[in-house]
Amino acid sequence: MIDETHDATRRSWVAGADGHADFPLQNLPLGVFSCGADGPRGGMAIGDDILDLAELAGAGILDAGAAALARTAAAPALNAFLALGPAARRALRRAVFDLLAVDGAGSQAARQMSTRLLKPARACTMHLPVSIGDYTDFYAGIHHATNAGAQFRPNEPLLGNYKYVPIAYHGRSSSIQVDGAAVRRPAGQLPVSGARAPVHAATDQLDFEAELGVVIGTGNPMGEPIPIGAAREHVGGYCLLNDWSARDIQAWEYRPLGPFTAKNFATTISPWIVSPEALAPFRRQAFRRGAGDPAPLAYLDDEEDRSSGGLDCEVTIGLQTAAMRGSGTPPVTISTTNTAYLYWTVAQMVAHHTVSGCNLRSGDLLGTGTISGPAPDSVGSLMEMTHGGREPIALPSGESRRFLEDGDLVILSARCTREGFSSIGFGACRGMVASAASRRPDIPGR
Amino acid sequence: MIDETHDATRRSWVAGADGHADFPLQNLPLGVFSCGADGPRGGMAIGDDILDLAELAGAGILDAGAAALARTAAAPALNAFLALGPAARRALRRAVFDLLAVDGAGSQAARQMSTRLLKPARACTMHLPVSIGDYTDFYAGIHHATNAGAQFRPNEPLLGNYKYVPIAYHGRSSSIQVDGAAVRRPAGQLPVSGARAPVHAATDQLDFEAELGVVIGTGNPMGEPIPIGAAREHVGGYCLLNDWSARDIQAWEYRPLGPFTAKNFATTISPWIVSPEALAPFRRQAFRRGAGDPAPLAYLDDEEDRSSGGLDCEVTIGLQTAAMRGSGTPPVTISTTNTAYLYWTVAQMVAHHTVSGCNLRSGDLLGTGTISGPAPDSVGSLMEMTHGGREPIALPSGESRRFLEDGDLVILSARCTREGFSSIGFGACRGMVASAASRRPDIPGR
Repeated sequence: MIDETHDATRRSWVAGADGHADFPLQNLPLGVFSCGADGPRGGMAIGDDILDLAELAGAGILDAGAAALARTAAAPALNAFLALGPAARRALRRAVFDLLAVDGAGSQAARQMSTRLLKPARACTMHLPVSIGDYTDFYAGIHHATNAGAQFRPNEPLLGNYKYVPIAYHGRSSSIQVDGAAVRRPAGQLPVSGARAPVHAATDQLDFEAELGVVIGTGNPMGEPIPIGAAREHVGGYCLLNDWSARDIQAWEYRPLGPFTAKNFATTISPWIVSPEALAPFRRQAFRRGAGDPAPLAYLDDEEDRSSGGLDCEVTIGLQTAAMRGSGTPPVTISTTNTAYLYWTVAQMVAHHTVSGCNLRSGDLLGTGTISGPAPDSVGSLMEMTHGGREPIALPSGESRRFLEDGDLVILSARCTREGFSSIGFGACRGMVASAASRRPDIPGR
Repeated sequence: MIDETHDATRRSWVAGADGHADFPLQNLPLGVFSCGADGPRGGMAIGDDILDLAELAGAGILDAGAAALARTAAAPALNAFLALGPAARRALRRAVFDLLAVDGAGSQAARQMSTRLLKPARACTMHLPVSIGDYTDFYAGIHHATNAGAQFRPNEPLLGNYKYVPIAYHGRSSSIQVDGAAVRRPAGQLPVSGARAPVHAATDQLDFEAELGVVIGTGNPMGEPIPIGAAREHVGGYCLLNDWSARDIQAWEYRPLGPFTAKNFATTISPWIVSPEALAPFRRQAFRRGAGDPAPLAYLDDEEDRSSGGLDCEVTIGLQTAAMRGSGTPPVTISTTNTAYLYWTVAQMVAHHTVSGCNLRSGDLLGTGTISGPAPDSVGSLMEMTHGGREPIALPSGESRRFLEDGDLVILSARCTREGFSSIGFGACRGMVASAASRRPDIPGR
């Protein structure tokens, strides 16, 4: 639904917001931050600042209903607010839009107390935006599934069930970190070529996976599947997600029950939850199936989802090695992909996840799976770029990479653009590889 | 460590405790219960009663240290208490032992206020004992892995990695229920013999899996693996676990990322956490590997674990059909197995889970995987008993079963026995199958 909060001609009085790469007035994502002595609390990103929702709730410039919503969203985790559902989310976004727009109702009052309401983002620390009960990772990138399958099963890259069932596995929620946290190179069992026995060692094939994260807003009771027509209303918002993976460990352990220690050591998400409302202009038709592809089963098929279940959002993967950092060289873009490449829509994922009666809870996280396009420079993992490490990529610094090295900084970012609309982004999802020997590595950028 | 709390000659003044099938004085497991108007709180099972730890903490009959422990354990979830670690757990168990033993210090005072301290279990409702962050299910039953593998991969039942890596997958924590909750028959994608396309329907192959559940006591920081020598100290206790599974859905969806909707609809656990202390007399050597089997890699190998990492505990699977219930026929035992059949020890599971640096948190739940022995009457799932449904089992009622039917009640129970020691049990882990059409089925026995 496009409304006046999407009007690109509307300006904000917050310095730096108009034309901001990620957070113009038309975005207003939710996150949890702390600043100085204040404890973690909910906020909204606007330009280079954060709107402090705890301060806003007490400022006396919202009506009672909106102030109550701001107070709920000001908690140290956004679960309770997102559980209120789409109407509450839309109401708070709309109220804040009116305060921060140059010509909005209440903008003068807000502007007068701007030093109280706005905190410079660079002075704040971001936290996980929700308490994540369960984390599920899908496998909806069909090009990725084909490319990855070719590494693990050269004779059978894309399995016969792929175009019928939205494949997914349950992931590890305890090790989900927010942007900026270091990732210690994991150890595990590595297969040894030509030998029956593996070795216990640090992974030699550490990889990233660029994904979209989906945060559940309203859950469902156990035993009551969410019909696909209602699925969209259960989504609280979106973030970027890096599903770090150790390919050698994965290849050895994944049969028959899927990846385990190859992925449970860390997952990184970007700190801001971008709302379905902010993304509305960037909806597009769902992935266009090929002529020979089966139609989705009825419980995964919905007219509205077919016409607007896709999302046009460009995802960029940046890499900065330790040597580049040392010489002041900025990160280099190694791939650019797009969420439109996902074979399954988010609504299909939600409907399939709950088809068994499985209950989702507010704050649960879904990953879409690695987003890859058909071209070599549009894939979402190093395994794909380097064909399993056999064809290293060359970096402008003169270095090359098969897989990640210690000190490598991986940066996911995303940008939704459409003619006539303000572009919006997600903020960064960064993680630096710490050596296997490091204990509790420092968190860079904090 | 065997001490006087294991002395079988010690008696309790609580009526019905001595010789109780599950909960004599020598057990004292922790759980969370509610009774009448009182909200959920921690308790200890003794005979047919529950010791109310909130009442105990305020009764003035414990020293200050033990009273503080009782107060922590009286919370509506046991996470905080279990996080205190083994010394605190042992101290509380010992203090309660002394109060409830006929000749214990403080037993006279406790006996005088027994109506305040003890609640009849039949009048109480049990709740999940911990708030479960992450749930991980292992696959440590080698006979089960072989039998199940033969169903899904007739040419390659036991994969080449099995004897090296403790296979596991991350499970779903939101749908874990406590003893007595109904399980709605799940729907999903079922393969159709001879066809490329599946159908969306209720499962025709609903199964149980009898497992031991392991509750984490003290967690570990992210990035710091738990060495096997320390792993035992991180276990807070044990319960029984039924990993309900839809075999037709599983067979279709499990490649390449493991089971998902085939298992995420429900998992049932018994309500009492049996302590490592209570189980100490029933330790035995770890699973004896065959002559051609590889030794565990060093990070999974420990002298103490080899000599006492196994557990001798008989697990019984009972079944009562609706027809049996209607005619007053008690449940029939359809299989009896033993935790000693597990190929990997619990310490090996903990060490492997964290080898990557994955953090465990207090209250996290591990399942051992289905426990099966080598004989047909010692397997832990119907799939194994009926060879994938092809050879139905006959019940004394004249009925037969390929897989579970609506109205079937599955009852897991367990008993540890050893000459010279009091036998202890776990309490029941029960679940009744509700029809696919039922919405939010009633919970029997509540």
